[in-house]
Amino acid sequence: MRTHPVSYRKALEGFLKEDIGMGDITTLSLNLEGKKGTGIIRAKEPLVAAGLVFLSDLFRLLDPEAKVKPLVPDGAEVERGQEMARVEATIDALLMGERTALNLIQRLSGIATLTKEMVKRIQGLKAQLVDTRKTTPGLRLFEKYAVRVGGAKNHRLGLYDAIMIKDNHIRAVGSVREAIRQVKGKAPYTAKIEVEVKDLNQLEEALSAGVDIVLLDNMSIEEIKRAVEMAKGRAILEASGGVTPKNIREIAETGVDYISCGFIVHHAVWKDINMKIEEVRP
Amino acid sequence: MRTHPVSYRKALEGFLKEDIGMGDITTLSLNLEGKKGTGIIRAKEPLVAAGLVFLSDLFRLLDPEAKVKPLVPDGAEVERGQEMARVEATIDALLMGERTALNLIQRLSGIATLTKEMVKRIQGLKAQLVDTRKTTPGLRLFEKYAVRVGGAKNHRLGLYDAIMIKDNHIRAVGSVREAIRQVKGKAPYTAKIEVEVKDLNQLEEALSAGVDIVLLDNMSIEEIKRAVEMAKGRAILEASGGVTPKNIREIAETGVDYISCGFIVHHAVWKDINMKIEEVRP
Amino acid sequence: MRTHPVSYRKALEGFLKEDIGMGDITTLSLNLEGKKGTGIIRAKEPLVAAGLVFLSDLFRLLDPEAKVKPLVPDGAEVERGQEMARVEATIDALLMGERTALNLIQRLSGIATLTKEMVKRIQGLKAQLVDTRKTTPGLRLFEKYAVRVGGAKNHRLGLYDAIMIKDNHIRAVGSVREAIRQVKGKAPYTAKIEVEVKDLNQLEEALSAGVDIVLLDNMSIEEIKRAVEMAKGRAILEASGGVTPKNIREIAETGVDYISCGFIVHHAVWKDINMKIEEVRP
Amino acid sequence: MRTHPVSYRKALEGFLKEDIGMGDITTLSLNLEGKKGTGIIRAKEPLVAAGLVFLSDLFRLLDPEAKVKPLVPDGAEVERGQEMARVEATIDALLMGERTALNLIQRLSGIATLTKEMVKRIQGLKAQLVDTRKTTPGLRLFEKYAVRVGGAKNHRLGLYDAIMIKDNHIRAVGSVREAIRQVKGKAPYTAKIEVEVKDLNQLEEALSAGVDIVLLDNMSIEEIKRAVEMAKGRAILEASGGVTPKNIREIAETGVDYISCGFIVHHAVWKDINMKIEEVRP
Amino acid sequence: MRTHPVSYRKALEGFLKEDIGMGDITTLSLNLEGKKGTGIIRAKEPLVAAGLVFLSDLFRLLDPEAKVKPLVPDGAEVERGQEMARVEATIDALLMGERTALNLIQRLSGIATLTKEMVKRIQGLKAQLVDTRKTTPGLRLFEKYAVRVGGAKNHRLGLYDAIMIKDNHIRAVGSVREAIRQVKGKAPYTAKIEVEVKDLNQLEEALSAGVDIVLLDNMSIEEIKRAVEMAKGRAILEASGGVTPKNIREIAETGVDYISCGFIVHHAVWKDINMKIEEVRP
Amino acid sequence: MRTHPVSYRKALEGFLKEDIGMGDITTLSLNLEGKKGTGIIRAKEPLVAAGLVFLSDLFRLLDPEAKVKPLVPDGAEVERGQEMARVEATIDALLMGERTALNLIQRLSGIATLTKEMVKRIQGLKAQLVDTRKTTPGLRLFEKYAVRVGGAKNHRLGLYDAIMIKDNHIRAVGSVREAIRQVKGKAPYTAKIEVEVKDLNQLEEALSAGVDIVLLDNMSIEEIKRAVEMAKGRAILEASGGVTPKNIREIAETGVDYISCGFIVHHAVWKDINMKIEEVRP
Repeated sequence: MRTHPVSYRKALEGFLKEDIGMGDITTLSLNLEGKKGTGIIRAKEPLVAAGLVFLSDLFRLLDPEAKVKPLVPDGAEVERGQEMARVEATIDALLMGERTALNLIQRLSGIATLTKEMVKRIQGLKAQLVDTRKTTPGLRLFEKYAVRVGGAKNHRLGLYDAIMIKDNHIRAVGSVREAIRQVKGKAPYTAKIEVEVKDLNQLEEALSAGVDIVLLDNMSIEEIKRAVEMAKGRAILEASGGVTPKNIREIAETGVDYISCGFIVHHAVWKDINMKIEEVRP
Repeated sequence: MRTHPVSYRKALEGFLKEDIGMGDITTLSLNLEGKKGTGIIRAKEPLVAAGLVFLSDLFRLLDPEAKVKPLVPDGAEVERGQEMARVEATIDALLMGERTALNLIQRLSGIATLTKEMVKRIQGLKAQLVDTRKTTPGLRLFEKYAVRVGGAKNHRLGLYDAIMIKDNHIRAVGSVREAIRQVKGKAPYTAKIEVEVKDLNQLEEALSAGVDIVLLDNMSIEEIKRAVEMAKGRAILEASGGVTPKNIREIAETGVDYISCGFIVHHAVWKDINMKIEEVRP
Repeated sequence: MRTHPVSYRKALEGFLKEDIGMGDITTLSLNLEGKKGTGIIRAKEPLVAAGLVFLSDLFRLLDPEAKVKPLVPDGAEVERGQEMARVEATIDALLMGERTALNLIQRLSGIATLTKEMVKRIQGLKAQLVDTRKTTPGLRLFEKYAVRVGGAKNHRLGLYDAIMIKDNHIRAVGSVREAIRQVKGKAPYTAKIEVEVKDLNQLEEALSAGVDIVLLDNMSIEEIKRAVEMAKGRAILEASGGVTPKNIREIAETGVDYISCGFIVHHAVWKDINMKIEEVRP
Repeated sequence: MRTHPVSYRKALEGFLKEDIGMGDITTLSLNLEGKKGTGIIRAKEPLVAAGLVFLSDLFRLLDPEAKVKPLVPDGAEVERGQEMARVEATIDALLMGERTALNLIQRLSGIATLTKEMVKRIQGLKAQLVDTRKTTPGLRLFEKYAVRVGGAKNHRLGLYDAIMIKDNHIRAVGSVREAIRQVKGKAPYTAKIEVEVKDLNQLEEALSAGVDIVLLDNMSIEEIKRAVEMAKGRAILEASGGVTPKNIREIAETGVDYISCGFIVHHAVWKDINMKIEEVRP
Repeated sequence: MRTHPVSYRKALEGFLKEDIGMGDITTLSLNLEGKKGTGIIRAKEPLVAAGLVFLSDLFRLLDPEAKVKPLVPDGAEVERGQEMARVEATIDALLMGERTALNLIQRLSGIATLTKEMVKRIQGLKAQLVDTRKTTPGLRLFEKYAVRVGGAKNHRLGLYDAIMIKDNHIRAVGSVREAIRQVKGKAPYTAKIEVEVKDLNQLEEALSAGVDIVLLDNMSIEEIKRAVEMAKGRAILEASGGVTPKNIREIAETGVDYISCGFIVHHAVWKDINMKIEEVRP
Repeated sequence: MRTHPVSYRKALEGFLKEDIGMGDITTLSLNLEGKKGTGIIRAKEPLVAAGLVFLSDLFRLLDPEAKVKPLVPDGAEVERGQEMARVEATIDALLMGERTALNLIQRLSGIATLTKEMVKRIQGLKAQLVDTRKTTPGLRLFEKYAVRVGGAKNHRLGLYDAIMIKDNHIRAVGSVREAIRQVKGKAPYTAKIEVEVKDLNQLEEALSAGVDIVLLDNMSIEEIKRAVEMAKGRAILEASGGVTPKNIREIAETGVDYISCGFIVHHAVWKDINMKIEEVRP
């Protein structure tokens, strides 16, 4: 799944406004009016590139004539020192957009890099890695994009695009069965229904009530194996809770269909990327 | 420096809209209309609390009568299992706000915890830890708040509130001296002027041109020591570049005034915090 | 599925601004400052009430102390002349909000009434009536709510919450099979996949590729019956295209699972409802 | 009166966001990157075209290079099967904009068609057909445009551009005379003053107080005739209330100046229009 | 004509954000959390008060519990040193809102004071003073309110609420007559039509074409007198152009109906008003 | 310091919407579709030009192909009758943008002209003229730009970019010393600290506590002279309060570093500028 400017353009504008506010008082104090140049964006450490696709729209908010030429596609494994993109724009635009651009692609490349690392650990197995709703507030669309770039798939995008009955829902309503019953009567029929269960009793309850997906929350490897047997052909199984690079393969080997993992987002740290302005032209 | 809703209220609303969109199709399919309850927010690992101050405004966007009672102040060191806050609200509001609330405080507590760890390492020395503009797009106000909660100070908030002549400015204009000259003629006189220098020659150039602060970019410990001697009484010195928990004390011991550090933000990972709904009331 | 102010509050504000703009120059020219009163909202023809749930939020944007007391719940069948709600507010708020409030509930009650009429026609049969994305621009959340109030279910909310491969997608990609293949590799795994087919060959192609739902577009009753036999247990079937009160029962009798219908929205006309101000109080 | 993008551009963007949200998960899952094509918009039933003028701005929000070529002007009577417009754009833009574009022009063509039908019924008579403020919330500018396209004129645009003393104002203030007196002292002097009266006594009261327009609310044909005699040269007369295709000519024949009618908007149903993508180009 | 928060609330929020941005770094650095106090707003020179009506909404954006007690109504003539209002709020709110509040009421009181001075000069004559569209960008609603507070009336609010054919329209279309003809065929029939004429020939052309109002642009006193005779009973006359306190009475004595004047807005200077915080309470 | 569209584009859009709203009912009623022309913007009195830099962005919001050619740069002294700029655009755009464009540049040229007059009065002296936060709500960025164009410098932009301890802060906290102490512990270290003092005792208190700038509020010339001696080398001094063209030179001669002055903004009146459309082209 690619992405389209209509969904993120306003966010990019907000990111720039956050940094620039009433004006970049350094750049605007310098005699750079009308000057143009090239900014070279370079990886300072090995990484999986993510977010280059947003740079053109970002710099065009500052200079409508800006031209961004990505030198690698999002998803590429980039080496230390390798050029990632070249930005042709007014010097004003380069200086005012630099930090916001880097902040975005450093964060996203951090996620893509960690995601790819975890995807590789389960290569060859049926299980697929998916993300969660544990994303930085305001950045979900971007972070879910980075997850895809890293080779994993997206879980639901928000509270609006899939039914997910979680522990607190069950607690509020009384039981797994009752929650499923209520939901089936009312929600959009095009939405899948997923239930989070904490043990095999709840799993059985969910399977008999009939749902599309069951999330096995924080179960032991043994329990997951039992769950896989129980659910065979009755529902898709998703393991979740405490998934890290260390245990992901073991979980995948249980035969579970999906492994959902917040770690790839909330434990991703930024990758080191910088931008140098070259070729200042009058 | 505290914070005030007028600056962040709209952002909170955006965070909720990002998750809820056209509607939480799970919660709104359940028969919970009018029901109230209590959500207990609990640390699942030791952490420095940050962001609790935003929870009341967040939940009131979902239930104007919501009452959030923080059980520790932001900045407190919280133990594993400790209750951090109690939220009294409609069950709808608890279920719809839970993830956004947690995403925010998990991220901010991650920053505050890492910040405090680094602040402790330079305790007793003159040098103070400060942040940078390397913050998650859209979240700067929140992340800079978390940095203060963690015991460090803020560097400038954006491009608009302090002059900072960086490498790319110097490259665009020609020299440190020329950049300073141009800036002094035009920028708000209430703004401090800071220059980033990469070696001691540039430092001398900056000091003679007269600036408030010099950022020593990626210098060796030896160079920083020399810089401290050169700058004595002529400008405030800020060391930056590659600062980590490992080297921060050594840097501080050079006698530098400030150490600016993106690591506390871009290498902070989320702290584990959850919310359980208790006491569902009709 | 109920609805929640966080999703529609901003829209209500926009509706009011559209009508009031720089000011209600009639009301604000009258000496009504501080006066309060009661507005009685009354049905002028038989209808199914829809939208009363929004009135409180609407009038509170004009008078934070406004109290709206619905006299029937949304979904109720209301007779000609029956009171639907009472609004206690400043006279200013009553006069400035009246038209916007009525426009909204007249439109929504029109949809709910027509929907209920069609739902009744298929009573006792398995098939369920669902809506489409043919909704008035800017009003989808409200119109989809009215559809639920009328007793039907919602199809997907937008392009973001379910996969729906339509004729133009198939044309762009080449075949039903290829479109399904591409989609399966990339979309959120929590989303159902639906394909629109125009004949039984395409239906077979879709069924073998494996999808959740097949939309039978504009098929004859005979074709639908054949489709029901073919699809048994392999996918959910949705009939669509030209559904009206006249033919809906016949379609339902084919054994199809869902009938999606734009008619309930795009052929709904407003119900006649008015508001009279009584008891003007100083 | 034509229309101008500055007044509607933001609304179009909102309409697209409503449908697309976080992303069109079908289209973006297909391998269509960079592909272009042509969308043919065709009438499926006879209609008066309205809204084609908005399509270029709409599709350019999705593809800045999009070219929309209307094949008929707004206002044209179009036959079943006739091509209305051709859209050249990326396939992404065509697929993502299709539904929103159609929803808009189907609604507007519905209004224009019904309006024209009613305008024709009073051809040759002095009376002119005008609309009301009974428009779909959020769509007034568009719907009032469609009314003009259909050959009628606009009544006031909102509460801000003309004085209109209605039944509830009179009730709140006490009398027609007093309401007029208060309004004359305060409102912009460039605004016309209109009063709604329910009988001939109120008409006389309004005429002697001096107003520009009197709206005769729900009067019988006989009463309207009497009103026309009474008002001769003293005020413009507007008949309103329960105007339908059946009674409009009879009302017009009374000699009244204007006939205001919500029916052309709130009883208009959508016209059937579709879009087929042809000529997919790499 | 009074005013209503629904029309200006968003603007007030914007005004505060303009001044406060990412945070009031002075106030938020002080230990004032939870403290409350009273701000006394006092005139430092004689003035006509305007804008006090907005203060409550303004301060409540900063402190929902804020209470503003105006000590004089808008429109009152206030003496040097006189208290105008008392604001009870958190000290944070008082300090953060002070400047924005004062900027607004100083500007508006400046306009109201100058307006009243000019209104007094034409007391006893038929002519009424009205404003123009020459208002500060972004502040029109507020400035037009101040004009009313000063005792004058509003001309049209914008380009949308009255027809005004000006010199550039006439130039573009060819003649006064032709412009009127085109406009009559298309504009909302509820809008008055005004034409700007530069000499008596154009006046005659306008009168015979039939318009509601004629603006006599920059005519001599003699010409205006002639115009008054010509127009008697055929149209309302408005004199405009270069109106100042010096010549306004002479213009009014010609018998013209209205005098429109940008001077009361664009030559108004701020009145001196300050706020002192008293009674700081813990 | 120049300015950049990213900071003001949204404001320009708001200015246009304020005037145009639902549509320019005059222009859009005329048969001008597709016609183009040239608007000549001319000074009607001597002035310092300011704001021409915004015109291109403004007219392009109405006509993306509009071309604005400034004939003088902002800051130029323009004579009565001199052409300031030529705008090539559709007639629609010229007519709809004219008033907003003129309102903006008339206001800004008024400020620039008055500023330049005051700057000239202190020519040859060390003291520099700076502005204050006393700016029209919503227009600060533009007015501060006009101040720079007039030859003065900007003081802080808002509450967020410099510490300024004012009389009310001191009153709230207890003393100058205590306020400085609290602020130093918390605010961004890159922000300058300024304190407002009302007498020489407070000045001494501020100087010993250590601040960057001291504002001498409403002091007599004698006091300012004493202050200059006291502060020598310890802090920058800024005189403020009641600065007018009459006393500014005397104040400057005291040796003070800066003179801050609200007068250049709040006592600036508009300069007379108009626009004539020429060369209407089909």
